[in-house]
Parts: sequence; C-alpha cells; structure tokens
Amino acid sequence: MKPTTAVAEVLERARDITEPLMREAVGRLVPCIRDVVSYHLGWADAAGRPTGAPGGKGIRPALAMLSAEAAWAAPELGAPGGAAVEMVHNFSLVHDDLMDGDTERRHRPTVWTLWGPSMALLAGDALSTLATDWLLSVPNPNAPAAAAALGTATAEMIAGQADDLAFESRRYVSVEECMAMSTAKTGALLGCAASIGAILAGAPAATVDALRDFGRHLGVAFQAVDDLLGIWGDPSTTGKPAGNDIRQRKKSMPIVAALGAGDDQSRELEAVLYGPVEQSGDGATELAVVPAAASSNGHSRPAAHEDGPGHGVPSWAPGARQALSQAEVDRATWLVEACGGRAWTAARAKAHLDAALGSLERARLSPVSRRALADLAVYVVERES
Amino acid sequence: MKPTTAVAEVLERARDITEPLMREAVGRLVPCIRDVVSYHLGWADAAGRPTGAPGGKGIRPALAMLSAEAAWAAPELGAPGGAAVEMVHNFSLVHDDLMDGDTERRHRPTVWTLWGPSMALLAGDALSTLATDWLLSVPNPNAPAAAAALGTATAEMIAGQADDLAFESRRYVSVEECMAMSTAKTGALLGCAASIGAILAGAPAATVDALRDFGRHLGVAFQAVDDLLGIWGDPSTTGKPAGNDIRQRKKSMPIVAALGAGDDQSRELEAVLYGPVEQSGDGATELAVVPAAASSNGHSRPAAHEDGPGHGVPSWAPGARQALSQAEVDRATWLVEACGGRAWTAARAKAHLDAALGSLERARLSPVSRRALADLAVYVVERES
Repeated sequence: MKPTTAVAEVLERARDITEPLMREAVGRLVPCIRDVVSYHLGWADAAGRPTGAPGGKGIRPALAMLSAEAAWAAPELGAPGGAAVEMVHNFSLVHDDLMDGDTERRHRPTVWTLWGPSMALLAGDALSTLATDWLLSVPNPNAPAAAAALGTATAEMIAGQADDLAFESRRYVSVEECMAMSTAKTGALLGCAASIGAILAGAPAATVDALRDFGRHLGVAFQAVDDLLGIWGDPSTTGKPAGNDIRQRKKSMPIVAALGAGDDQSRELEAVLYGPVEQSGDGATELAVVPAAASSNGHSRPAAHEDGPGHGVPSWAPGARQALSQAEVDRATWLVEACGGRAWTAARAKAHLDAALGSLERARLSPVSRRALADLAVYVVERES
Repeated sequence: MKPTTAVAEVLERARDITEPLMREAVGRLVPCIRDVVSYHLGWADAAGRPTGAPGGKGIRPALAMLSAEAAWAAPELGAPGGAAVEMVHNFSLVHDDLMDGDTERRHRPTVWTLWGPSMALLAGDALSTLATDWLLSVPNPNAPAAAAALGTATAEMIAGQADDLAFESRRYVSVEECMAMSTAKTGALLGCAASIGAILAGAPAATVDALRDFGRHLGVAFQAVDDLLGIWGDPSTTGKPAGNDIRQRKKSMPIVAALGAGDDQSRELEAVLYGPVEQSGDGATELAVVPAAASSNGHSRPAAHEDGPGHGVPSWAPGARQALSQAEVDRATWLVEACGGRAWTAARAKAHLDAALGSLERARLSPVSRRALADLAVYVVERES
C-alpha cells in the first residue's frame, strides 16, 4: 500500500530532520565499520559509493518526531530520539540476519554475506553502543531519561528475541507466551519510538505513558501483519520465499494459534511440522532435534553444539531437523488457515491497532499530531510488505 | 604470580561491594539469558546450579573502586561503575569467543559451544545493553556522565576489535597501527574502569583525565604482556595451546614488530606466515586468501563469504588459508624472537607501565589509593596468565 499524501509528507519531513543526525552519528564510527553500516542503511553500495537513495521508510523517526509534536514541542526536539531508535533497530536487523542466515534484505545481500559473520557482529555491536552514546551527547537535559528509556526498550527487545529463539526448540508454546514475546520483540522498541520525542520534550508522565502504550500496541499489530505476510505474503513484495515461516517452523502467531486449536487438524499440523509426539519422562514434550536446546519451561539448557564444520568453528546451521517438502509446506499452510490461525492473527492485528488508537485518546495531545500518529498507525498495519 | 596481600585485599574488597550490584543487574535479565550470563560469569554451572565460586579476578571493579577512593570519595560510589564496566568486558568476551571460535575460557567450555552461536550473540547483546541501562538507573547525579564515558570507551573498544579483524587479512601492519589498535581494544575500557569511580564521585576533570590515562597505559601494557603470553606463555596457565597466536597468524605486537625489522630473517618470517609476496597492480600487497576481505588502506571492502556449509548458513570458518605445521610454528616463533619482537614488546610493556605510574603523579590523589592503584598495575602487568 502506498502511503497517503499526509503520511508520505510526515515520513519525508521526519527523514529530512533525522537523517543528517544519523549521518553525523555514523560518521563517528571507524572507517571499516562505517562502510558496513552505510551499506546496511542503504546510503552506500558494497564498494562504498553513495547510492543517493534514502534508507528505510523511517517509521520510527516519524513516530519520534510526531511524539514531540504531540507533546506540543518542536519536531526537531524528537529527532535525536528517532535517530537513536533507528540505530538500535538497525543493529537488531544486522544481528537478526546473521542469526537467521538470511542472505537478502530489501533485495540486497545482507551484511554477513558480504563482510563475514565477525564484521556483521562487530558492526551491530558498534551501532548498538553508538545509539546510546550519541543520544547522551545531545545537548538536552532530558537526554539521559531518553537514553534510559531506549536502554530499557532495547533490553526488552533482546529478551523477546531470546524467547523467540528458545521457542524454536519447544513443541508447545501458548498463545499468551507468543503474544508476550511479540510485545517484547517488536512492541518495546516501537513504544520507545512513539514516546522518546515526548521524553526529550519533557512531557508529563501521563503523556509519555499514553504514547508508549500506543507504540507498543502498534508494534504487536505490526508483528501480527508481519506474521501473516510471513506465510501468505507475496514473495515479490516481501522479498522472502512464499511460506517462509512455515518452512522455518517459526512459532509465529498464526502457527501457534493453529497448533492450539486442539482438534484433529491442529494435531495433523503438529505432526507435519514436528513429527510424532514423543513423551519424555517428566511428562513434558520437547522437540527431538534442537539447534541449541531449551527445555519446555522457558529456561534455557545448554546442549553440546556439534554441527560446526570443524572443531572450534561456530556454525549457525539450524540443527539436523529435516527440511519440509513443498507438499508439506502447502499442506501445513492450508492447515494453519483451516485451524483458524489466519483469522485469529488478523483479529489480533485489528484489536491491537484499535488499542493503539485508543491509547492516543488517553492524553491531552496536539490534535494535528494525534491525527498524524493515527494515520501513520493505520498505514503501518495495512501495508502489504 | 599470586597477588601480594595488599593487592589481594583490594581485589576482595572490590568484589564484596561490586558483585551484589552485578547480581542485582543480571537478575533483571529474562531467565533464558540470565542462565547463560550466570554461567559465563562463573556463578553457575551449565545446568544452572550455583558454583559458589567468585567470577574473574575483578581487576576492573577494583580499578573503579580505587578511582573513587583516589578522588577522596567512598569506595561504594565507584562500585556501580565497576559493575557496569565488568558487564561490558564480559559482553566483549562472549562475542570474542564466538568470533575466534574459542571452545574454552578459564578451562570451561565457552558459551557458544554450549548454547549455540545465536544465544551467545543475544547474551552478549543483552549484557552490553544492561551495562548502560543499569548504570543510568543508579541514583547518582553523575550517572549519565559515567554512562557516556562508558559508551565512548565501548565504542572505542569495538573499533579496536574491528581493526584487529581487518588486520588479519592484511600483509603489512605498521607498529604504530598495531599500538593504536591495542590502545583502542584494551586501553579504552581499562581507562574507563580506572576513572569511572572518579566520574561518579564528581571529581574535577584533571583528576578524571589523569586516572583515565593511567588506565589506558595500563591497558596497553596488559595487552603487551598478553601478546607475549600468546606466543611464549605456559599452556597450563594460559589455557591456550603453545604458540597459539603464531598458529592463528595474529597481528600481535611481537609479530608485527618482528615483521617490521626489515632484514632477511623478517622476510623469512613473512614468507612462513603469509607465503611469497604477490605484487598487486596498484603496488599494494594483500594476503591472497582473506576471510572477509579488507584492503590494505584500513578501509573494509566486502568479499563474497562463501565458505559456509550451505546456502544461507553463516560460517565463522577463517577462510581457506592453509594451517601452519608444527615445524613452521616453531620456526616462526624462533624468528619472531630473533627479529627482536619479544624484546620490543617487553620494552613496550615496561614503558607503558611506567607511563601509567607517571599519570598517577599528575593529579592530587589520595596517597593510599594512589599506592593501591600502582600496586594493582604492577600486579596486572607482571602476571603470568
């Protein structure tokens, strides 16, 4: 979906005031890391030549800018927060691509495929550190509070990613666990983006809280849509193969909801994805093959990691679990829908979008900015990729 | 070398006031990450059972505590800084072990070998974020300044690690580049440890600067000793195979100094380590086989990373460079010493220890604490492992 004129104008305005700050911050990195980060952000090609293209859509910078305006402050006050959140977001993308072994992002090779895993790891570490370090250097008395909020959100995001990873090796994940993980993984940082401008503007706690809640609900709605696209999205717009999340046996919302339906079809889905149930001694069931084992109580448990190509060489190979055939992917996709996973997730997207819009009514916000935040939220949730 | 009674007393006192803070901070992590971090810190075994053992020696917490006392403040004022620096240090160790493919640290399996690369990556990310986030939550008006100093030091450390990585694929590295990399990689964080207590105590800039310089020089001296142990250290105390850095062709101080000697023996050393010189078109020479290519001007340059075990699976395998035979390792070790690399590095260790002690004379410090800092510095540099 193309943004409406109003949304497009907001995105462009945010980019205009945020990108110069990001370029200034990224300019502080040593050359060998700066090149990698500039490539990842879309500013340069792999040889370091400027592309002249803008980076991503800039949803987070737009939220940060609008949150300052919503708190009756100048948009420029929110921009440093938007830049810092965007740095954290991109640090997580660089590390995610490495963990997932994804070779493409936005139709370009990922950082680790070009520079190797070690440089991808260091570039992510550098961006993560830069975000807070740079934000603390902004001459604004509220910068420490903004940095603290960003740190707390980043910690929650990483906790969500760790849960997501642990879920991969568990047979059973409840929808509550799945939603809590999505709130942490995606909602925390969007909640920070949607309130950091208000924090930098010194807004009252009630305003900051309402904006954060707006962003958190928006994040869950966004993740629900992402999970739908991960199964039913058009590969030409998502840039990922059709049925990708089924093939990777992700514990995404549609799959978890379908597995929890408790009927014959959900049991068939479980068998297709994870094979026959093996009852373990203590009554808990676990997946027979685990990439890095985690027990079913959510606490991790180490397992020797022996699928590297040689002694002392870490490998990200996702265990020895057998790949699903195309027929199995097709059947599982049909079963997820038949078990109501698709409808349930779409309902979650709508419910959390409504909750997000409701949060905006809780505080005394500038009406123009409230409207712009609502428009942006609808655009984000109704996008197709 | 065992610490003297005075040094042992300082280390124990620092541990007593810092470890409870670290445990409080680590307690904020989600269980699946907390288990991994507790294991890495030595507090728990791989099954999560408390070991009852203290973690590392706690050099950084001791420096932070003493830097508060040196600035005429209570030791407790420095402890949160020591805890935060120790978290950053351990984040870097977890990611280093992953990048280097090291399977043991302190005679225990490394995190990635037990929980897999993805969880090691996330645990490091979590510790890095926790350090700043937790420090900003300390009720001390100077906490934001301390967090900013920690962020700047962390950024410099990561830059040094990136240079270190880029050096691996370069044939020629000057001793100046090598020393600058060591200052960044090791000096920056020790400089932060040795001044963060003074920052938290609100000490004058001249005091903070002198203490930071002390720590930075101490870091370089420490790295010089580390580089000597990496070639001539006793495997039973270092926990690494003899000649490890030669085998891995690291650009450590003794090797870089020896390669730069410019005589027949240094050319023989170069040929043993990197094979015959191949002159490239633009006059610069590079290593024929690069794990993730970086050109010799210090700017990184991407190269397709194709040694993974399969499509879409990142591999840390360090390229296809041929392993050195034991005879080659022995010959190279002899050549490094014959070219003066060992003596040069030992002289650097001494010079930077002297410079560190000199820095302590530059500020009006509490005499007892100045003496304790000096004793600790001598202990750190004269250690055997």
